[in-house]
Amino acid sequence: MKYVPERTGNQGSSLVSDLASRVLKGDHRALAKAISIVESGGIGRRRLIHELYPRTGKAFTVGITGPTGTGKSTLVDKTIQEFRRRGRKVGVLAIDPSSPYTGGALLGDRIRMMDHSLEREVYIRSMASRGDVGGLARAAINTIRVLDAAGMDIVIVETVGAGQTEVQVATAVDATVVVVMPQLGDEVQAFKAGFNEIGDIFVVNKADITNPSKTMFNVASGLQEKSGWRPPVLKTVAIKGTGVPSLVDSIEKFQKFLDDHGIREERRNKRLESELIEAAFSDFYTETVTRLKQEKSWQHLLGQVAKKELDPETAASKLVKAIARLDVSENA
Amino acid sequence: MKYVPERTGNQGSSLVSDLASRVLKGDHRALAKAISIVESGGIGRRRLIHELYPRTGKAFTVGITGPTGTGKSTLVDKTIQEFRRRGRKVGVLAIDPSSPYTGGALLGDRIRMMDHSLEREVYIRSMASRGDVGGLARAAINTIRVLDAAGMDIVIVETVGAGQTEVQVATAVDATVVVVMPQLGDEVQAFKAGFNEIGDIFVVNKADITNPSKTMFNVASGLQEKSGWRPPVLKTVAIKGTGVPSLVDSIEKFQKFLDDHGIREERRNKRLESELIEAAFSDFYTETVTRLKQEKSWQHLLGQVAKKELDPETAASKLVKAIARLDVSENA
Repeated sequence: MKYVPERTGNQGSSLVSDLASRVLKGDHRALAKAISIVESGGIGRRRLIHELYPRTGKAFTVGITGPTGTGKSTLVDKTIQEFRRRGRKVGVLAIDPSSPYTGGALLGDRIRMMDHSLEREVYIRSMASRGDVGGLARAAINTIRVLDAAGMDIVIVETVGAGQTEVQVATAVDATVVVVMPQLGDEVQAFKAGFNEIGDIFVVNKADITNPSKTMFNVASGLQEKSGWRPPVLKTVAIKGTGVPSLVDSIEKFQKFLDDHGIREERRNKRLESELIEAAFSDFYTETVTRLKQEKSWQHLLGQVAKKELDPETAASKLVKAIARLDVSENA
Repeated sequence: MKYVPERTGNQGSSLVSDLASRVLKGDHRALAKAISIVESGGIGRRRLIHELYPRTGKAFTVGITGPTGTGKSTLVDKTIQEFRRRGRKVGVLAIDPSSPYTGGALLGDRIRMMDHSLEREVYIRSMASRGDVGGLARAAINTIRVLDAAGMDIVIVETVGAGQTEVQVATAVDATVVVVMPQLGDEVQAFKAGFNEIGDIFVVNKADITNPSKTMFNVASGLQEKSGWRPPVLKTVAIKGTGVPSLVDSIEKFQKFLDDHGIREERRNKRLESELIEAAFSDFYTETVTRLKQEKSWQHLLGQVAKKELDPETAASKLVKAIARLDVSENA
């Protein structure tokens, strides 16, 4: 049985078990290694998730997302500190849209800037957002699982922008915090179109640069109650820490709301459904596309389209049948 | 035979044939309708592409892409005008990352700003970049085909940003022009990581705001010759039209280069290969996922994962087998 290509070397079962037990103790070095394994995929990922999954489900996961320039990273840093003040262990996954190099450096700076006394109870990891959407979402979800199993009370996932990747990752959590800033004007409208539905809590950060009332009003208008929760619109000045305790209050209030109404479980199961389908189709694709390209009929079909004897849409529908006929289950 | 869900009403064969023949004559209203059909998918798309595909292949397709704020839209407008001066018919597809509403308004302004005498020989269409990546790429590729069949000499595809969607669309063309501006600094580095490989021509626009030499040097360094073509790095001040004739010269030079070396055909066939595979798997997914969700075993599997009796990675590999067993070809 081998649908997922082996990419991470042969992590033997016992090695993985050993790593898993160190992760469960919250060992930071084990965490780093475990996340690298789930990020790179392959059989190591499957084994590790198999070991860790039964021990997950405790962490409350929070996505913090919004356009660039809204001071999101600072807000995340202050939010971590506030959660720490309340005695929570915090894991952070920062999805970085820039190159891995730049991203790494920035994150390094941010970690250095943080109070050293917090270091042991906070684990921060960045992940470059290049590559395929589905692959990143799967890596992010499994990274959240690793952090959850490691005993984090809160896992924060930070994303930037309104691309498909970002929205997919930002919604793979229990609570989604959407950050904007005043003076965005038209951009707020465009942004809202994408984020209205996914936000559980809205924050107007940099509320000191100008009167945030208009932006707060714009954000609030059109927001709809979801299962009895009306998304609050808060204002913060992250760089000074203003409003951050209220934000954390709101997150905790939302957590309580979800648990009291059994919605957290319901939402998780819904996410699980999409996750399983996306993961299975992605693995099916990987396996099938290789087999397909080895078929002579594929080269023939491609040649017909290139010569304009067949149009691409008709060719695609022929190909659907060819895909269905490839029985990859025989391989199992 | 029905893999693609019917979404556009029952465009009968004869209606589609009539529309296709009006598209071939370059009728703008027919163009608008045809693009709406290929954009919305369904059987209408298949029929229309079936009719039009044999008449495509003449247009030279140019992607113009780069980060926001580089004055790309102005550059595209001036490039259209320059091509018109040279007697070329121009079709434009603008992939708009903002809401369809904002996008529409902006595009309306741009069309109004253009010289009216050009209007008849230029067709501009915008497409919102929301929705799934694959779906947008397919719609964009088929829109290019419609514009090509309508007799456009040049089809320009304008995209913003370095997301997966944008890169996928920006590379579905014969020539890719990458636009940056001076003073981007670190951003140029991050940007280059994504665009180095896809650019055939690089433009430093807004070259009047500061000395562009350093940016031009940064962009040029690390660029590699591809099949004997060294991507030029040009400077423009689009708002004044400065450098635009040189850009169009470069595009025409590149077109000649591709044709002289038979590379245009080769690249097209390579793109065709990816397009067919993506389209077929997307249709396969659409058909199969519905069937899968009707299976009792699927609900059972999902329940096991929710109850933590099974981990998601093991469940996904079981699901791969279930997908392979669903014989959608029987449906055909």
